Amino acid sequence: MGQTNSQDQMLRARAQSVIPGGLWGHLNAANLPPGYPQYFARAEGCRLWDVDGREVIDFMCSWGPVILGHHHPAVEDAARAQSALGDCMNGPAPVLVELAEKLVETIPHAAWCLFSKNGTDATTACATIARAATGRRKLLVARGSYHGAVPWCSPSLAGVTAEDRAHILHYDYNDPASVKAAVAEAGDDLAGILVTAFRHDMARDLELPNPAFAQTLRSLCDSHDAALILDDVRAGFRLHLGGSWETLGIRPDLAAYSKAIANGHPLAAITGSEHLRTAATKIFTTGSFWCGAAPMAAALATITTLHALEAPTHLKTMGERLRTGLAASAKRHALPIRQSGPPQMPLMLFDNDPDFRLGNTFCAAALDAGAYFHPKHNMFLSCAHTAADIDRALEAADAGFSAVARVG
Amino acid sequence: MGQTNSQDQMLRARAQSVIPGGLWGHLNAANLPPGYPQYFARAEGCRLWDVDGREVIDFMCSWGPVILGHHHPAVEDAARAQSALGDCMNGPAPVLVELAEKLVETIPHAAWCLFSKNGTDATTACATIARAATGRRKLLVARGSYHGAVPWCSPSLAGVTAEDRAHILHYDYNDPASVKAAVAEAGDDLAGILVTAFRHDMARDLELPNPAFAQTLRSLCDSHDAALILDDVRAGFRLHLGGSWETLGIRPDLAAYSKAIANGHPLAAITGSEHLRTAATKIFTTGSFWCGAAPMAAALATITTLHALEAPTHLKTMGERLRTGLAASAKRHALPIRQSGPPQMPLMLFDNDPDFRLGNTFCAAALDAGAYFHPKHNMFLSCAHTAADIDRALEAADAGFSAVARVG
Repeated sequence: MGQTNSQDQMLRARAQSVIPGGLWGHLNAANLPPGYPQYFARAEGCRLWDVDGREVIDFMCSWGPVILGHHHPAVEDAARAQSALGDCMNGPAPVLVELAEKLVETIPHAAWCLFSKNGTDATTACATIARAATGRRKLLVARGSYHGAVPWCSPSLAGVTAEDRAHILHYDYNDPASVKAAVAEAGDDLAGILVTAFRHDMARDLELPNPAFAQTLRSLCDSHDAALILDDVRAGFRLHLGGSWETLGIRPDLAAYSKAIANGHPLAAITGSEHLRTAATKIFTTGSFWCGAAPMAAALATITTLHALEAPTHLKTMGERLRTGLAASAKRHALPIRQSGPPQMPLMLFDNDPDFRLGNTFCAAALDAGAYFHPKHNMFLSCAHTAADIDRALEAADAGFSAVARVG
Repeated sequence: MGQTNSQDQMLRARAQSVIPGGLWGHLNAANLPPGYPQYFARAEGCRLWDVDGREVIDFMCSWGPVILGHHHPAVEDAARAQSALGDCMNGPAPVLVELAEKLVETIPHAAWCLFSKNGTDATTACATIARAATGRRKLLVARGSYHGAVPWCSPSLAGVTAEDRAHILHYDYNDPASVKAAVAEAGDDLAGILVTAFRHDMARDLELPNPAFAQTLRSLCDSHDAALILDDVRAGFRLHLGGSWETLGIRPDLAAYSKAIANGHPLAAITGSEHLRTAATKIFTTGSFWCGAAPMAAALATITTLHALEAPTHLKTMGERLRTGLAASAKRHALPIRQSGPPQMPLMLFDNDPDFRLGNTFCAAALDAGAYFHPKHNMFLSCAHTAADIDRALEAADAGFSAVARVG
């Protein structure tokens, strides 16, 4: 610890000349606290090593994909065995059918599924299927919710035209009245309502969906013959293996999955209810690698292992241990914090920290002490996190709180 | 040969219940001649084995991705070594920088690049960068050209709204006058012109770009400060390693690559000229697996190997051998055919075959005799095709021509 980031700095300097801004998208370290590495040399279980040799216990899990820990043997063996036979061929391998059957068996609303590569592929296909099914155009999304990185839903307006969002209407998460108002605005042109598994917008307290809100979405979609689209890309498989709203007893018509579905191998899935099967055959959605068999074999092994480990329960237990420990440590340092979200995907914010100065200080010092936290985005637990890992990370967090107390 | 497709039929039947229509997208065997398998058990070099154990010499190369042949050792070793270190992490591995440097060194117009997963990601990002750079909206595309499978460009209109294409204007490939007319129609709102490397629309003769057409696109983009976007997703790395229009001496401002870039590992890239670097930093484009390191290691090994093998020349030699052999065989059978496109990505059509009855008969019989051709989509050569493979495939083709002569 405390080494310089010299290898990281050299790579960043080289990248500046061949990659605009050094890196695109959500993994750009420019958005992270000072001292966070951009480049990684190696990963194992819940641990990462940056290119300067620093080892950390990781609580971002690659921003979601790594749910069993890096290099889970069942997943890697399955991917390797399929790859040795064939990966990207003129058609799928039999594992496509096995994986589709496994998802339909695992996810109660699902009568069928399609596979793609990005979460954005999946949310876009859901939106297109909803429109194809209904012959209508309006899609309701919650203000501030993230559904992908293409013009109809990107958080940036650069290069986006007004027409890209002509048929997007907004409601407020957890506000049934705002949903009713948006449905009224859509009139007889309502194709569907998109909703994330919980409110996980960056840089604000996370909010679980309240049951009345979820029920309102379901009832309005039913009464208007519109599609309820659950965007489970970020949360999928961490809260409940059957879909994140199973605990609420609310089932969507379409759901988008990606991230954790194959423990880091590139895959996304759309699941659909029976009444949308025909609409799904009408749209054209495809990609050069979407029938790639190795990521499907990885996904099948991932989902099988998640069942065997009762993953959501393990993740919850570990997340609660982290949460309890962070609360106790903050209290010892007399630092007011707020913890929100499901324990499997937690967030910790400091009170009175509008510019995240305290959060950044906490994270930078905790990183130096061996734990990789995030100051404003929900974090992720994995099945590779043990109680000992959490306790070790809490020691690093304590160093973070000490640093905050010093600058406080 | 001549076996039943019993395993394939069983898998198709199972898929019918869990996948809408049995399979989505371009790999759906419902669009192929009778007898073509849907499911594949294994691949090696230029050979595929279907789930019923039939071996074929393949001329689709997974519809483009497989350019060195399946399981090329340099590519697989590189992917495996990177994967053993780490693939999907909290940030990229150093190979990101090495690959970006290699692309910028290989592709003359490129000052920078970005990576994604699908060809559609790349074409969409190019369109968005062009709009962000210019503050204008209109994009020109050739009638019938394929640029991806999302609403702004999908070949299907199901689930697509008029607004998704409000700013798309059309021209005709190889027709400079139609380009000028579309530019005039765009007026002061022209953001860019998209063009495929050659005219490779399905089910018609392929057309190479004529130099005057290419020069017109370049001149109009220059005089209007608009971006010339080369969609090299399908052809990239087969015709010229520096970009498919290098032989014409025309360089784009933005180019989209995918398919062959990593010999079947999932990756796409956008390359850009220096003057669009700032615009590229403004748009938001990202995906959960876009910094995945194993496909980047595969791409670096692929491009290095393509250079070492002088791949375009080898592919051309093999494609010409195939073309010459097909012409001779058709002549022996007195069957009039047309061959079009670059030899590396050839197409053979029968004269007087509007419903592809002759093409389907040819393909079905050739498949039975051990070669996997396509009746109406451009095919692909790979570096794994040897002269002996071509000669063996020509024997299968001869069986195909015999079958056509019998029914013809």
